[in-house]
Amino acid sequence: MKAKIHVTLKNGVLDPQGKAVGHALEALGFDGVGEVRQGKYIEIDLADTNKATAKMRAQAMCNRLLANTVIENFDIEIEL
Amino acid sequence: MKAKIHVTLKNGVLDPQGKAVGHALEALGFDGVGEVRQGKYIEIDLADTNKATAKMRAQAMCNRLLANTVIENFDIEIEL
Repeated sequence: MKAKIHVTLKNGVLDPQGKAVGHALEALGFDGVGEVRQGKYIEIDLADTNKATAKMRAQAMCNRLLANTVIENFDIEIEL
Repeated sequence: MKAKIHVTLKNGVLDPQGKAVGHALEALGFDGVGEVRQGKYIEIDLADTNKATAKMRAQAMCNRLLANTVIENFDIEIEL
């Protein structure tokens, strides 16, 4: 199974990387660009055959390594 | 409108960041972890009111700044 994981900064947490991208887009001449937020996208191949188990393990991976839950949210999708 | 953009490395391009995450997960005791690939996830607020225009502009942003199309693919979703 494949776990598709999005790790994004929580609302209210400053995102200097997103701000930099926003400024760069403006400098390139793109107008009407509002807030830009940048996060991580991680795909993990898992040996699990049960969807629920795979999701539980992916959650544990996020909590222990992939996300800093003080400032980041994560979202997991499991695909066959 | 909001553009949700995934930038991922093309198949066959080495992903040392993903490899490092995979090794770290194994070191933490997670077994059955196969390939790990890490990409970027970017959300952009756009002033456009037309979905097709918004998508076209987001594509231009990817081609010019957000993705290195030699080694990366991008995927765009437009949301109201």
